[in-house]
Amino acid sequence: MKWHRKDLLDLQSLSVEEIQTVLDTAREFKAVGERHIKKVPALRGKTVVTLFVEPSTRTRISFELAAHRLSADVINFNAEVSSLRKGETLKDTARNLEALNADFIVIRHSAAGAPHFLSRVLGAHVVNAGDGAHEHPTQGLLDLFTMREKKGRLAGLQVTILGDILYSRVARSNIWGLRKLGAEVTLCGPPTLVPRTFEAMGCRVVHDLHQAIADADVINLLRIQHERQRKSAFPGLGEYTHLFGITRSRLADTKPDVLIMHPGPINRGVEVDSDVADGERSVILEQVTNGLAIRMAALYLINGGKATTPGAN
Amino acid sequence: MKWHRKDLLDLQSLSVEEIQTVLDTAREFKAVGERHIKKVPALRGKTVVTLFVEPSTRTRISFELAAHRLSADVINFNAEVSSLRKGETLKDTARNLEALNADFIVIRHSAAGAPHFLSRVLGAHVVNAGDGAHEHPTQGLLDLFTMREKKGRLAGLQVTILGDILYSRVARSNIWGLRKLGAEVTLCGPPTLVPRTFEAMGCRVVHDLHQAIADADVINLLRIQHERQRKSAFPGLGEYTHLFGITRSRLADTKPDVLIMHPGPINRGVEVDSDVADGERSVILEQVTNGLAIRMAALYLINGGKATTPGAN
Amino acid sequence: MKWHRKDLLDLQSLSVEEIQTVLDTAREFKAVGERHIKKVPALRGKTVVTLFVEPSTRTRISFELAAHRLSADVINFNAEVSSLRKGETLKDTARNLEALNADFIVIRHSAAGAPHFLSRVLGAHVVNAGDGAHEHPTQGLLDLFTMREKKGRLAGLQVTILGDILYSRVARSNIWGLRKLGAEVTLCGPPTLVPRTFEAMGCRVVHDLHQAIADADVINLLRIQHERQRKSAFPGLGEYTHLFGITRSRLADTKPDVLIMHPGPINRGVEVDSDVADGERSVILEQVTNGLAIRMAALYLINGGKATTPGAN
Repeated sequence: MKWHRKDLLDLQSLSVEEIQTVLDTAREFKAVGERHIKKVPALRGKTVVTLFVEPSTRTRISFELAAHRLSADVINFNAEVSSLRKGETLKDTARNLEALNADFIVIRHSAAGAPHFLSRVLGAHVVNAGDGAHEHPTQGLLDLFTMREKKGRLAGLQVTILGDILYSRVARSNIWGLRKLGAEVTLCGPPTLVPRTFEAMGCRVVHDLHQAIADADVINLLRIQHERQRKSAFPGLGEYTHLFGITRSRLADTKPDVLIMHPGPINRGVEVDSDVADGERSVILEQVTNGLAIRMAALYLINGGKATTPGAN
Repeated sequence: MKWHRKDLLDLQSLSVEEIQTVLDTAREFKAVGERHIKKVPALRGKTVVTLFVEPSTRTRISFELAAHRLSADVINFNAEVSSLRKGETLKDTARNLEALNADFIVIRHSAAGAPHFLSRVLGAHVVNAGDGAHEHPTQGLLDLFTMREKKGRLAGLQVTILGDILYSRVARSNIWGLRKLGAEVTLCGPPTLVPRTFEAMGCRVVHDLHQAIADADVINLLRIQHERQRKSAFPGLGEYTHLFGITRSRLADTKPDVLIMHPGPINRGVEVDSDVADGERSVILEQVTNGLAIRMAALYLINGGKATTPGAN
Repeated sequence: MKWHRKDLLDLQSLSVEEIQTVLDTAREFKAVGERHIKKVPALRGKTVVTLFVEPSTRTRISFELAAHRLSADVINFNAEVSSLRKGETLKDTARNLEALNADFIVIRHSAAGAPHFLSRVLGAHVVNAGDGAHEHPTQGLLDLFTMREKKGRLAGLQVTILGDILYSRVARSNIWGLRKLGAEVTLCGPPTLVPRTFEAMGCRVVHDLHQAIADADVINLLRIQHERQRKSAFPGLGEYTHLFGITRSRLADTKPDVLIMHPGPINRGVEVDSDVADGERSVILEQVTNGLAIRMAALYLINGGKATTPGAN
């Protein structure tokens, strides 16, 4: 198929066909990453600006490397020390970057909808690298990619997402993508963080860990961000681990080939034990590698690249 | 003409012919920016170091992009976390960067004359990206470029610069350049910030806004940097806006084709209202785009490039 | 000779032949730096990540420029604002960088042995850019390179290292390399900082400056890092300078062609006077230039490059 979108903002608005196009294109780019020369000239002479108003070294580096692989130039706009601190509006900052001929703005922002706003006021391509608790589409896509690659399909797959669902953009992007592609989604965690309202998105909501993981093909663990967890809604860390931490013994009753996933960085001994995180069922590091391919695909497609056939160098 | 200077330090010392050479060369580079492939190989294998002792994300990024477009490598030397903090002198830092084969040092410094000092002790090319209240030559040149492009000429043009002139390096670079090229310059703002001493530079000094802008072809607004404005010399922010802020109603009595310029970042509702900043007379974002071309021209010329004919890629 | 190591961790474990291979390869790369086009395509498509958990702008930039010259892409991982701050382990951070296809990890860390640890858990190439008080191998190698280039040989050379030996990784890398290559090493400084235990490494330990430098071919000064010097072991700054600071008058009794070296940044007037640091015997800035060549050689060799013949571009 031909790709028509200028931006990548969320999974909610993507069609099934569009999601599959990103996944298929990423598969081709993953193969490029395994070659001796890993660069393609697709974005030569283009400029990618990473505008991270909320810090995230890991995601920023993944986008930066993806841009390098496509031969683009990359500018890191550090919002902490920038004109945004001098009271400039986000819109003015972004329009200035566009006036500097930025072709792509990769934005992370604490406010849900910030990338959509930029998308409307800019001619440049906008990629959402995480907006508040709303969406983190490239994370969602890399999760889908990893599940499809490992399990051969998404339709009918039993996926359990475990943790703080309420405040998680990763969970929301997963839910939208998985439901569209026919997977069954179970959400699990403390009742304060996994309310029944998510059933409206087509998910099963379960508050008992055993019940949630018994039939799962995939367990996608969310990071417990205890440094910014709301005190009133979150149980103690010890209690969380006791009730929902994934240990080797708890995996005894799951399917023997269940995939363990996590967007990272992991808290060893909190949401997952080291022997599980480093065990044979874990694909946590492969997710990181796949993220690079997904981000190359996203930049490539919104630039107008022909779907699924990235030119070789 | 052939360019002979190793450095770009100020507009005060440039000849009329040299200024025109930069503007003409920038015009060619602006055309490059509008092509599909925006890079030229002029500085391939050269290293540009941005040494910003005073932070400025916007200007640094403009230089960084200009260097990328010329195929140079760029190193950002963050003085906040560097050996300058360990007590090393500016001279030693710069000589070390030169020993690392830096070909260009782009310096911003709070001390007037710092770039001139480096120019004397280094063999590397030095570009002044703003030194204290002294000069900001690439800003001055991009302002001249924008006026000439929009108005077709500089000689005889009526240019009003409005704001804190006393502490503004942007104003000084504008004044030097505009006067050399035959424009008439009016300075306006509170008497404490626009002393009559500027008349010695060939400017008209006016403290009444209406009088200052009535016949202007260009109004160049300076940013009110209220966070570092001297308390004793600066009126309250509300009073400043009341007396000197540019609103749509105040433009009623100006020439219908007056250009509104601003070096950015703008304080909406302080020195300029949003409907003016975003209105049809404003060229604020075009200034940003032109800045990239001016900085490419500056790096290209001091590297010894042939004037006005940047090689294509 | 053919190079077989995946990593560059220390001088202690390198053979004489391996050290000479690095020095010979660096000599070739130094010649590249003097050409008009200074880049070679050896690492095109490879990614070098600088993982500096302890800040050092100068060393980081040297590695970054070396990587640029070899046509690699460079990612600066700022540990100050990264997931390491969120409690992630060094191992997880490094494995994530490897999962992002980082080919080289250049690490600086306050803990001795951190690079060796990464070397064991990663497939990526690891370069030690300084680990605690243990080693700083590229600094050691550039010091050897400079001495060999200036004096024509290392065997039999009389080298005096002056300063805080006890806590210096630079001193340790110098000692290992110089002793292996047959130089005679004298260590000098206050008794609390230059204990007799260093005699076990084959060095002469002397606490009198005159005696230490009288017959020296090279005086390698260490930086007095008074901001982190242990109060109990370090004399006052004035006392140190009085007893061990190198002044022009103190050089009167040394060999007329003694080399003055310093890893930088220098404290003028503390460990060395300006007229010595800037004098004709000083090779301090040449050390910086040589560091670039050494780091190119290190990256090139561990990547599997053929020793001593870096391809031209």
